[in-house]
Amino acid sequence: MIIIGERINSSREQIAQAILSNDAGFIQKEAKAQAKAGANYIDVNAGSFVGEEAKHLRWLIEVVQDVTDHPLCIDSPDPEVIKFVLPMAKITPMINSITLEPYRLEGMLPLVVEHGCNVIALCQTGSSMAKTTEEKVKMASQLVEKVTASGVPLDDLYIDPLVYPLSTDTETTLCTLEAIEQIMKQFPGVHTTCGLTNISYGLPNRRLVNRTFLVAAIARGLDSAIIDPTDKGLYESLKTALMVVGKDKFCVEYLKAFRDGGFE
Amino acid sequence: MIIIGERINSSREQIAQAILSNDAGFIQKEAKAQAKAGANYIDVNAGSFVGEEAKHLRWLIEVVQDVTDHPLCIDSPDPEVIKFVLPMAKITPMINSITLEPYRLEGMLPLVVEHGCNVIALCQTGSSMAKTTEEKVKMASQLVEKVTASGVPLDDLYIDPLVYPLSTDTETTLCTLEAIEQIMKQFPGVHTTCGLTNISYGLPNRRLVNRTFLVAAIARGLDSAIIDPTDKGLYESLKTALMVVGKDKFCVEYLKAFRDGGFE
Repeated sequence: MIIIGERINSSREQIAQAILSNDAGFIQKEAKAQAKAGANYIDVNAGSFVGEEAKHLRWLIEVVQDVTDHPLCIDSPDPEVIKFVLPMAKITPMINSITLEPYRLEGMLPLVVEHGCNVIALCQTGSSMAKTTEEKVKMASQLVEKVTASGVPLDDLYIDPLVYPLSTDTETTLCTLEAIEQIMKQFPGVHTTCGLTNISYGLPNRRLVNRTFLVAAIARGLDSAIIDPTDKGLYESLKTALMVVGKDKFCVEYLKAFRDGGFE
Repeated sequence: MIIIGERINSSREQIAQAILSNDAGFIQKEAKAQAKAGANYIDVNAGSFVGEEAKHLRWLIEVVQDVTDHPLCIDSPDPEVIKFVLPMAKITPMINSITLEPYRLEGMLPLVVEHGCNVIALCQTGSSMAKTTEEKVKMASQLVEKVTASGVPLDDLYIDPLVYPLSTDTETTLCTLEAIEQIMKQFPGVHTTCGLTNISYGLPNRRLVNRTFLVAAIARGLDSAIIDPTDKGLYESLKTALMVVGKDKFCVEYLKAFRDGGFE
């Protein structure tokens, strides 16, 4: 299970403030906490700063790399921004994310190839986001085709079938779960990943909804997630779910997480 | 989701004591608590009392029926015991359980037919319990064939594909999950159910393991469970999982359970 720590994102008020005040210590604390909690990649996002995204993202990359050897997940929809900051990564990063939108896809794929990155690919075009199972699997298929045609190994591709808030639509989440299972079966070797937090928007007890969806998705084959690994309830659900689906031989990881105090 | 409340089982020390001391109040408190917490059926089991099972089970049925209008799930492996107590049920009960063992199957099926009961059927014969996905689905198929041939509608059949402790085998739980999905797809209209507690035997934080498995099983199609509905963590996971898989239109049940204080 590849865990991408999502906390260093400028859409969070505290992160935006830390960026604006050059508070490297705050950002570094977030990076270290996520690395310690089990993140495999540390996501860095400065997307809220239109026109200054590249500058701020470069700063984030610098300060995070000063305190952790974990690879980064460089998070921007803009190929120019990715191109600008990519050479700074000390360890091969993940790129978050491409879509089927030609400008984004054609702008980023050469960078993915050149740097040998892993890449997250969203099931959306420039004008529409996949809603039904069929749409998700179809777009996943197109992404697989285009990405592998460019020379990226399937093992480097992380498909995100997208989730929507349950509070506005209780039907589409099942489509996401079904799409995960179908994508993992149809393209052996590919990965699926998911940002969770959208799903619980507008509902009480959001952490419960997020962790329950994560378990359900792992039960359908999800093998990566964009999450807050410092959320202990979420992390214990993740570790337990991996054990339940047979991905934790002799319960070693579960027992280790329990002993290490990773449980609520 | 059909919830069978498992607490009135003589394998629990407090229940065995209450039976021996004719403490109807204790049993009735357990029955009412489970009914209030969301059980659809109240399981009654006196299986620990070899030779006196029928007598004690009859008493359990009497005292439980005195305080609740919920149907019972009459729990015994012995067709003679079931036959003895079945006429006492005021509301059509569920029978827990048949297997492919000829004595048990042929002894109980006529009772199921005569009384129009729902019935739980375990994926096991007299000599072996299904372990692999293939074994589970094969035995489920045999159970479907035999039960429907006797005149029982598919909708009255609850197949339990069995779970084993993760602590002794981390492979077979995935088989249970896969079997649930395959059984639900191959026999539209049939139900699947599961007793959970076995799965966490020997592990720390058993409640976490139980509720995580329940969510995973619901994600694969499980539509009934033999659980302790008064376990709030388990119950909130169940309600949330049903919402996540699209079985709670407009999140009505989730929000109701939250408002009613059914959440931890």
